[in-house]
Amino acid sequence: MINLELIKEIARPSPTKIALLVIDGLGGLPAPETGKTELETASIPNLDALAAKGICGLADPVAPGITPGSAPGHLALFGYDPISYNIGRGVLEAVGIDVELQPGNVAARGNFCTVDEKRLLIDRRAGRISTEKCTELCEMLDGMLIDDVQVLVYPVREHRFVAVFRGKDLASDVTESDPQQTGVAPLSINALSQESKRLADIANKFIAQAKTRLAEQHPANMVLLRGFSLQPDLPTMSEIYKLKPLAIAIYPMYRGLARLVGMEVTETGTKLEDEFATLKQNYANYDFFFLHVKWTDSAGEDGDFDRKVKVLEQIDAALPELISLEPDVLVVTGDHSTPAVLKGHSWHPVPVLLCSKYCRHDAVQSFSEPAFIAGGLGRIYATQIMPLAMANALKLAKFGA
Amino acid sequence: MINLELIKEIARPSPTKIALLVIDGLGGLPAPETGKTELETASIPNLDALAAKGICGLADPVAPGITPGSAPGHLALFGYDPISYNIGRGVLEAVGIDVELQPGNVAARGNFCTVDEKRLLIDRRAGRISTEKCTELCEMLDGMLIDDVQVLVYPVREHRFVAVFRGKDLASDVTESDPQQTGVAPLSINALSQESKRLADIANKFIAQAKTRLAEQHPANMVLLRGFSLQPDLPTMSEIYKLKPLAIAIYPMYRGLARLVGMEVTETGTKLEDEFATLKQNYANYDFFFLHVKWTDSAGEDGDFDRKVKVLEQIDAALPELISLEPDVLVVTGDHSTPAVLKGHSWHPVPVLLCSKYCRHDAVQSFSEPAFIAGGLGRIYATQIMPLAMANALKLAKFGA
Repeated sequence: MINLELIKEIARPSPTKIALLVIDGLGGLPAPETGKTELETASIPNLDALAAKGICGLADPVAPGITPGSAPGHLALFGYDPISYNIGRGVLEAVGIDVELQPGNVAARGNFCTVDEKRLLIDRRAGRISTEKCTELCEMLDGMLIDDVQVLVYPVREHRFVAVFRGKDLASDVTESDPQQTGVAPLSINALSQESKRLADIANKFIAQAKTRLAEQHPANMVLLRGFSLQPDLPTMSEIYKLKPLAIAIYPMYRGLARLVGMEVTETGTKLEDEFATLKQNYANYDFFFLHVKWTDSAGEDGDFDRKVKVLEQIDAALPELISLEPDVLVVTGDHSTPAVLKGHSWHPVPVLLCSKYCRHDAVQSFSEPAFIAGGLGRIYATQIMPLAMANALKLAKFGA
Repeated sequence: MINLELIKEIARPSPTKIALLVIDGLGGLPAPETGKTELETASIPNLDALAAKGICGLADPVAPGITPGSAPGHLALFGYDPISYNIGRGVLEAVGIDVELQPGNVAARGNFCTVDEKRLLIDRRAGRISTEKCTELCEMLDGMLIDDVQVLVYPVREHRFVAVFRGKDLASDVTESDPQQTGVAPLSINALSQESKRLADIANKFIAQAKTRLAEQHPANMVLLRGFSLQPDLPTMSEIYKLKPLAIAIYPMYRGLARLVGMEVTETGTKLEDEFATLKQNYANYDFFFLHVKWTDSAGEDGDFDRKVKVLEQIDAALPELISLEPDVLVVTGDHSTPAVLKGHSWHPVPVLLCSKYCRHDAVQSFSEPAFIAGGLGRIYATQIMPLAMANALKLAKFGA
């Protein structure tokens, strides 16, 4: 597979513009009653027209058979090998709430939870306390200094928070304290290597102190930590592609992922129309745009086939606003499939469409999984989408003499 | 991806014959007026018949999105990973004029140029002096001995020459002296590593001496050097495939590339018919034939859609001569695409056709990019063509027990 060093060598800046529209969880599976997927069921004339005009295919985010999380799904779309560059959950949660991590920091996801007098878990989410309460409790825990490591605690939403361990010599391969069930005690955190003993020890001390400080705060009288991970050191998209990239995403995690690869992240509204309006306002000042649409994935995760169809139709209806900007290269794809019948992410390859002045055409006339099998892009890896987009934008020089 | 070590292990000699016809810059893009590519426009009944009979697909020379130069394009066709085996420009130019390089030699491309009395460049090509004049000037510079390194200077064509540095301990990672613009002085050559300091120093001394010797030779009163590269150490095709390969190519660069992988290179004429006649004469004595046709690429580079169509038709008309030899395996493909609308090499995958007694058939009935999308070979890497050809020639033993 192509490596980023090679792309870095041949990438060159140019005035052309690339728009990457990521419809989260785009691919689906047939509903048993109709035999048609969400895309085949939806009335999406604008996407169909793009499919007829551009070149289509199916992309594997990681590899055939592998179901990706949101992080590997997006990293692959940005051209980063999702296996080499694995982003931990703690880091993901932290960057998603605008926490600035420093090299060597370890982040973990936290839950406020409820334990009984025997220390057994009664509620892993402390009755989903309000975000205000969570903020108040985080302040009670924030800033501890344990063995020269500062522990910073940031509220996320409801019972969820992020703990950042800031200090030297931290390795993140430790077990989690969340037993993922009630009726048992929270687990102690164990090191999985010699190097991570220090972090395990500090994390256990933090939890012990948190328990003491939260003793009177029923139902949020304890914390659970999971997803310990180190801040990764990723080359930025500007370094690799010589692009000036802008991310437009409503949900924090996707803004966070974009930030990890060095994109600028802008404020936008809460609707797809807002995202497209934000794109229009910023169109002159950037040459790469990552637009993220979440609701297809949420509908798929909920197993709501009809809602996923409706969301697809809404996206299609809004699309002319994006098309009217006439980006030199328009890519429409997803970070992974989320078939409603599976109620979750899946391993199925994701439809990918590329439109440019220089793409070959194929026989595909509609935007769907079965139609895209015959597409001219064939079956590719999602990491190959960025090189293709760059090539079609004439931003890659020739390789070799 | 399959590596050459594995192929080497299972390759075995046999009397079957493989013909690899490389139509340079074969793939194209639709003309905006007709929506048809060069191949779709051309009347090519013989190629269509082969497509109907054989198995077809599209091959990426390096990877999706990557536009290859001629060297990586051909190395991939010969089965060598074009990223691991990157051939430098100087070496390519040298082998293209039959200069025999030895291991450890460094070659650079040279231009005679014109500088004014302030040493500023007036003409990077010295008014394109005649090849005769170039030959005469090369003799003036040839054979210098600088710090135990012999510098050999060979004329190429017009203002172009090759300088070969023959000596010990030479590394080629140095900058170029050609500033690629006029009105400035030639650059001095700088080492990019500790190891290349020696070459940089010798190259600068060579340039200084050349300036002195050329002082009275206006307009060719100075030299520019670029593309410094080391003679690569490639395993030969005989070693890997147990083949006895013959290269038939009219243009020097392609003969040079064939020589780099250990092919024998034969003299031929100046027309496609000459190449096929040369093939016929030598058919009994070899079992692998690389035939190179250049003019499709030249027409594409010139942006001359109609001429590319015409060249394709000429190739098609000459083809029965090749087919009548009934090679056990016939492969028709290109080293890269050169769409007339792009006036240069491009990243688009290249049509590849394989005919043998043992290939599966597919539904493809015509020889074109859109038709080949549905081909039975699917979308492959160009490095996979040689193993397929070898297999179809029954020259590969079973792998594993």
